Amino acid sequence: MRTGVWLVGARGSVATTGIVGGLALRAGLTGPTGCVTELPDLRGPALPTFADLVFGGHDVATTPLTKRAEALAAAGVLPGRLATALAADLAAVEDDLRPAPTGGSQAERAATITADLTAFRERHRLDRVVVVNVSATEPAPAAHPGHADPDALRAALTGPDEVLPPSSLYAYAAVEAGCPYVDFTPSTGLRLPALAALAAQRGLPYAGHDGKTGETLVKSVLAPMFAMRHLAVRSWSGVNLLGGGDGATLAEPGANAAKVDSKQRVLGETLGYVPQGGTRIDYVEDLGDFKTAWDLITFAGFLGTGMRMEFTWHGCDSALAAPLVLDLARLTAAAHAAGRAGPLPELAFFFKDPIDSPTHSLSEQWQRLVDFTRELHAGGAG
Amino acid sequence: MRTGVWLVGARGSVATTGIVGGLALRAGLTGPTGCVTELPDLRGPALPTFADLVFGGHDVATTPLTKRAEALAAAGVLPGRLATALAADLAAVEDDLRPAPTGGSQAERAATITADLTAFRERHRLDRVVVVNVSATEPAPAAHPGHADPDALRAALTGPDEVLPPSSLYAYAAVEAGCPYVDFTPSTGLRLPALAALAAQRGLPYAGHDGKTGETLVKSVLAPMFAMRHLAVRSWSGVNLLGGGDGATLAEPGANAAKVDSKQRVLGETLGYVPQGGTRIDYVEDLGDFKTAWDLITFAGFLGTGMRMEFTWHGCDSALAAPLVLDLARLTAAAHAAGRAGPLPELAFFFKDPIDSPTHSLSEQWQRLVDFTRELHAGGAG
Amino acid sequence: MRTGVWLVGARGSVATTGIVGGLALRAGLTGPTGCVTELPDLRGPALPTFADLVFGGHDVATTPLTKRAEALAAAGVLPGRLATALAADLAAVEDDLRPAPTGGSQAERAATITADLTAFRERHRLDRVVVVNVSATEPAPAAHPGHADPDALRAALTGPDEVLPPSSLYAYAAVEAGCPYVDFTPSTGLRLPALAALAAQRGLPYAGHDGKTGETLVKSVLAPMFAMRHLAVRSWSGVNLLGGGDGATLAEPGANAAKVDSKQRVLGETLGYVPQGGTRIDYVEDLGDFKTAWDLITFAGFLGTGMRMEFTWHGCDSALAAPLVLDLARLTAAAHAAGRAGPLPELAFFFKDPIDSPTHSLSEQWQRLVDFTRELHAGGAG
Amino acid sequence: MRTGVWLVGARGSVATTGIVGGLALRAGLTGPTGCVTELPDLRGPALPTFADLVFGGHDVATTPLTKRAEALAAAGVLPGRLATALAADLAAVEDDLRPAPTGGSQAERAATITADLTAFRERHRLDRVVVVNVSATEPAPAAHPGHADPDALRAALTGPDEVLPPSSLYAYAAVEAGCPYVDFTPSTGLRLPALAALAAQRGLPYAGHDGKTGETLVKSVLAPMFAMRHLAVRSWSGVNLLGGGDGATLAEPGANAAKVDSKQRVLGETLGYVPQGGTRIDYVEDLGDFKTAWDLITFAGFLGTGMRMEFTWHGCDSALAAPLVLDLARLTAAAHAAGRAGPLPELAFFFKDPIDSPTHSLSEQWQRLVDFTRELHAGGAG
Ligand SMILES: NC(=O)c1ccc[n+]([C@@H]2O[C@H](COP(=O)([O-])OP(=O)(O)OC[C@H]3O[C@@H](n4cnc5c(N)ncnc54)[C@H](O)[C@@H]3O)[C@@H](O)[C@H]2O)c1
Ligand SMILES: NC(=O)c1ccc[n+]([C@@H]2O[C@H](COP(=O)([O-])OP(=O)(O)OC[C@H]3O[C@@H](n4cnc5c(N)ncnc54)[C@H](O)[C@@H]3O)[C@@H](O)[C@H]2O)c1
Ligand SMILES: NC(=O)c1ccc[n+]([C@@H]2O[C@H](COP(=O)([O-])OP(=O)(O)OC[C@H]3O[C@@H](n4cnc5c(N)ncnc54)[C@H](O)[C@@H]3O)[C@@H](O)[C@H]2O)c1
Ligand SMILES: NC(=O)c1ccc[n+]([C@@H]2O[C@H](COP(=O)([O-])OP(=O)(O)OC[C@H]3O[C@@H](n4cnc5c(N)ncnc54)[C@H](O)[C@@H]3O)[C@@H](O)[C@H]2O)c1
Ligand code: NA
Ligand code: NA
Repeated sequence: MRTGVWLVGARGSVATTGIVGGLALRAGLTGPTGCVTELPDLRGPALPTFADLVFGGHDVATTPLTKRAEALAAAGVLPGRLATALAADLAAVEDDLRPAPTGGSQAERAATITADLTAFRERHRLDRVVVVNVSATEPAPAAHPGHADPDALRAALTGPDEVLPPSSLYAYAAVEAGCPYVDFTPSTGLRLPALAALAAQRGLPYAGHDGKTGETLVKSVLAPMFAMRHLAVRSWSGVNLLGGGDGATLAEPGANAAKVDSKQRVLGETLGYVPQGGTRIDYVEDLGDFKTAWDLITFAGFLGTGMRMEFTWHGCDSALAAPLVLDLARLTAAAHAAGRAGPLPELAFFFKDPIDSPTHSLSEQWQRLVDFTRELHAGGAG
Repeated sequence: MRTGVWLVGARGSVATTGIVGGLALRAGLTGPTGCVTELPDLRGPALPTFADLVFGGHDVATTPLTKRAEALAAAGVLPGRLATALAADLAAVEDDLRPAPTGGSQAERAATITADLTAFRERHRLDRVVVVNVSATEPAPAAHPGHADPDALRAALTGPDEVLPPSSLYAYAAVEAGCPYVDFTPSTGLRLPALAALAAQRGLPYAGHDGKTGETLVKSVLAPMFAMRHLAVRSWSGVNLLGGGDGATLAEPGANAAKVDSKQRVLGETLGYVPQGGTRIDYVEDLGDFKTAWDLITFAGFLGTGMRMEFTWHGCDSALAAPLVLDLARLTAAAHAAGRAGPLPELAFFFKDPIDSPTHSLSEQWQRLVDFTRELHAGGAG
Repeated sequence: MRTGVWLVGARGSVATTGIVGGLALRAGLTGPTGCVTELPDLRGPALPTFADLVFGGHDVATTPLTKRAEALAAAGVLPGRLATALAADLAAVEDDLRPAPTGGSQAERAATITADLTAFRERHRLDRVVVVNVSATEPAPAAHPGHADPDALRAALTGPDEVLPPSSLYAYAAVEAGCPYVDFTPSTGLRLPALAALAAQRGLPYAGHDGKTGETLVKSVLAPMFAMRHLAVRSWSGVNLLGGGDGATLAEPGANAAKVDSKQRVLGETLGYVPQGGTRIDYVEDLGDFKTAWDLITFAGFLGTGMRMEFTWHGCDSALAAPLVLDLARLTAAAHAAGRAGPLPELAFFFKDPIDSPTHSLSEQWQRLVDFTRELHAGGAG
Repeated sequence: MRTGVWLVGARGSVATTGIVGGLALRAGLTGPTGCVTELPDLRGPALPTFADLVFGGHDVATTPLTKRAEALAAAGVLPGRLATALAADLAAVEDDLRPAPTGGSQAERAATITADLTAFRERHRLDRVVVVNVSATEPAPAAHPGHADPDALRAALTGPDEVLPPSSLYAYAAVEAGCPYVDFTPSTGLRLPALAALAAQRGLPYAGHDGKTGETLVKSVLAPMFAMRHLAVRSWSGVNLLGGGDGATLAEPGANAAKVDSKQRVLGETLGYVPQGGTRIDYVEDLGDFKTAWDLITFAGFLGTGMRMEFTWHGCDSALAAPLVLDLARLTAAAHAAGRAGPLPELAFFFKDPIDSPTHSLSEQWQRLVDFTRELHAGGAG
């Protein structure tokens, strides 16, 4: 099952780490640590192998992929030996990267993207191409009448308005090209009635939003712990210090708001009440691609006794995110192959703000993911 | 369903907090925070109500219960107003406390305990009495031929040897009195072939070992998180600083070894490999009944990138343990009423070192507990 | 040397804790922990004794002092037994509290304050009264021509403008009443040319600003450590979570800015460069009078190797601040008695943002304080 | 002033980092971060320059220095580019490394060491050679009559006994060769009456013990902070997790005891009382050359209110220690040049367990160091 993985933001940290890692796995230069689809409970015949994956993508930046890989190696995100060993393979992927289209109407730009996707699929004789958005987080867009339904949207796109934010324009173009779509960012992507309707019409599955890699991952096991023990969480306050490209973007207030919002949802929905406190994101350039998050939780036990827990998470965001991008591409490809269309709530395990998921508990999400892949492997998830 | 809760170590911190809390719940002076059997997923008709519970117990100490309650209030474990408001009820429980028997053969001491239990059950017209061991942790006992089967045991007990450690003598006496037994400590208790056989013969359920309240509770959700994400835990090191009566006991090397051992089991069994590092327990008198645990976890992600997490847990052990003692008494009583005999692996959720449990994952244990209580309420867990 | 301690914000947490503690020390009910003027290096004959201190003050609030003391006891800031034992003494202080004047021109309000101070001094036959501002932090005031010199100020005060922020109006009135003045808050207080000139004319000493009690105290020893070891601090980021009255005020952006500003100064001035990162203050009601601060410091050593340190400070702000208020009153009274006028940079040890201090290093400030008190005791600091 | 730096343990992590750094400074390939003798308050004409330093040493290991440098680069202790750029200079130093002598009487081994030192001094026409012990920490030696005075020692060394532990044998040989001696480890070194007498006779200065680089460095500023604020430290508990060669040695109980001991001294001597708690050292291989220390401090403030602080230090021990080794060599050489003999308590700033120092406060030690170097530069410290 030859599968294209088309990355929007293909020269970013997550994308570059994902490409290097995917190529390294194909070449047998590394093991599958961090790839959940390689765990005994999940792996199986329905998923494309690492050797089946072919990478391409769009980006507004033009830095060569090998330069980005070297920079990530210098920053301790990748082993330098991989960047060196895979130089030729990276150059090959470079040929499949395309500039983000500019100028003209949004309809014209969408057509260019669709054409890029179609050409990629044909050039490599791929069974399908999964589009994964790992570009910079956008601010929430203004409402527009064109968001309501496919016809209104199509009409509006030909006009002069910036009807869709970039993530949604890519999603639209992906659907037009018959490609499943995954949003690894908190951006809008496919979350508009017009786009959801279009994806349903075309029989395309999609998943999102916002990869769950650091503080929120920890929250998704600690909050259920407090709930299962009937302990009353009084306050939960967090601060995220991060450098890197993503950090710089998130320092921008619009994007920060979008991110913080999806982070707090976990608590309220798991506990049944919203504790005091909030989450901060601050940009500290020196931290580079490593993020430090600190959380303080105060809680009451039996007879009201006050207690506290704090944790510090010091993680490399790209090293945590990249294998999940590969997992999501494999799973979404398999779902498409199995005939699934519309949202994939079974992939909630991967997201901070999962579409249509009844729970934020990591282990309930895990159980659902295990059941889903079991069905896929048995040939029945469609 | 009038249910006796007989506490071995009835004047200790956990026991006193449990008694005060149980009386306060009966009197409507406090809410059920920390009692998992009061969560919507677990509560129901099969469990005795708080008003159904009657407390008694053994202890080697003689400090009056009201004195212990005042001391715990001064230490911030209990609200002082409860100790005051419940003075009369505590005095009533005082009448049901008995000294730990001394002198004579172990058979004679066991007979005294059995007689105390039987008299308690009759005096209060109780449907059943659950014996819960919350006395000081013992060192592991020396092997003895009497441990092998009921007949050998009975014969040995009449001789001069200290055949059984105290926890096991209480367990033996409980079984002889027809009482279900719960071990909240890491001591041996019912974990001897002779005693397990006896409990089976008498149709008595039992549960244990070692209440899971602090660092290990956190481990039981964090270790599965790393496993589910296919992250490679390289080292997990912890230190537990604690004061209080339990802290003083654990400073003693024999007991320390027993406790540390049950703490490390969670990791190896959850991850499938044992990471580097270990757990320390140190006695720091000034910390009183509050414990501070600090853990450092180093782990590798995709392509081997090294990352780290640390957490500090600052909990009041007695406030965490006491409601679980009430939960265990209620659940074990209900299991007995439903005709269950032998070990209760469905109660693994409560223990660091659960009997016969296939998993240390808190959420899998939770699911099993939910299923079990659902059956009990439906009238079918026997 | 009978000394009045007049507290602006006399019903606040810091003031109430200071009054209770001062009375308890006088009554021999507590020891001098936290009072630096009782250390062997500082104590001596020049300072008024605790028995010499008489308390009074202004506040806009009207809650009785005994109520405030009970609330602080319930919150764990004070031992309840002290609030009880000192009820009569607190009632006596209550008689010396006055409402903050309202209505009329600022000149009229200042006159009322001056009259209150004079009457207090006479009523109790005090040698002098030290005015200490411990009221809520104000936003920075708008510039006004009246701030420039005493004549312009006096003229402006009779008009309709709010020429001075409250802290400065109290400072003005204190100077008019011949009282030394200490500003324990980051508010403007005496820091206006007109007021400094007036204090000099009247021969009055003054000190400030902003008591150094938590995170900044720690910074004032850690930053010199990095400097003395020639380590390059790359980033220093902090978050302060606090409840209580002060926390609520600081949640207000104007006050927050003032406070954060004085917190960051320490780093730049000690290190000679400003590292990346910043300090946040967030209000978390559940934390009450206890504050949790977390700081992350990244630094480079030899050959550029990156390292990190983090600390969590969990302190009771009022318990840290109150004894310093007593220290400052004693020291400023002694300075006044010795004939000192104008700013007292020798008291920099106590402040986040000290007037005229060449250093933020706690130990250099300490050395200066030791020298200063030694001179006072020898009779020569004037 | 051509100065030899003779490192005992010359192939260890600290020594190798020191040599690479010294060569890199000479070549202008790096800056002096971490070298305190390059701070404005300390630098000056009395110290040998980095270009004046010539390295040599003994080791029981034989791994080539370039191999060790590469390994340290791979572990993130050094930048890889330095190991590469300095390959030729490292090979030159290699020629000045000698095996630790074995076999024969201790007198014979000492003679070999003395000969190695003398040859080194002559070969490179050095004004003097400072011997610095950075070899593995030893257990405390058994008492021996030969330790009492020079004559007894000389007599004993010719016999079959292992009279001196290795660190003291090196110290003896250094003194015999007329070399000042610095002990950067907690080993015995020159701390025996016989050796101190000999050094005095020969007019040689010496310094020690045990470089202060991590947790103890932090303690030496935090403990004075608590003392200066009259706060009562109730408990101070710490754990040190470390890998690397030093970590493996310290896992050995004898060495561990020596190290822990020197760590606890700071507290008792600074505070005037010994708080509860202790320090643990645990070996965790995965941490490599980076050490993580965690400390919990509980303390009481005014009126007994309980508070707490915790910190985590994540430092690269070799990167912290190596520049201090260069500092100590430069300062001890200058002291020797100025005619100083006997212990150098002015260098207490550098040590956990300083010889003859009246204080453990880092800033008091700093002041003394500043005064000392000022005198040296002025030509008068002798
Ligand atoms: N790393 C994680 O753990 C994690 C977790 C959840 C979500 N995410 C999200 O993943 C995204 C990528 O993160 P990153 O660290 O790789 O960021 P990055 O800044 O390194 O990469 C983003 C890339 O997107 C490109 N880009 C920006 N606008 C574009 C456009 N209109 N079209 C095409 N490309 C565009 C940029 O040029 C850049 O190369 C972010 O939105 C982040 O919030 C990351
Ligand atoms: N608190 C927790 O979170 C927690 C968690 C798991 C296990 N535990 C276990 O619970 C037990 C009780 O803890 P605690 O904090 O109440 O300790 P504690 O020291 O306050 O109380 C123990 C009591 O047992 C009594 N005792 C000792 N030997 C006895 C004997 N032979 N017969 C009868 N009584 C005896 C003592 O006199 C004391 O009153 C300990 O074994 C502890 O390890 C506690
Ligand atoms: N606690 C500390 O560690 C610390 C350290 C440095 C500075 N401070 C400063 O000390 C001050 C007091 O702190 P707190 O915790 O006691 O706060 P608080 O809110 O408990 O008390 C402030 C008091 O000031 C009174 N007040 C407000 N406006 C007034 C006015 N115009 N005239 C007279 N009274 C007025 C309030 O009614 C209140 O009683 C704050 O400004 C705080 O920033 C405190
Ligand atoms: N790194 C720090 O921050 C720090 C701080 C204080 C003290 N120290 C001390 O510095 C010493 C060196 O630390 P390291 O990390 O470099 O350790 P390391 O194990 O890397 O190096 C020690 C070296 O000493 C050599 N050695 C052992 N016995 C010897 C002998 N008898 N003669 C000659 N050489 C011998 C070993 O072969 C090894 O090369 C240790 O004693 C350590 O306790 C280090
Ligand atoms: Na921490
Ligand atoms: Na911490």
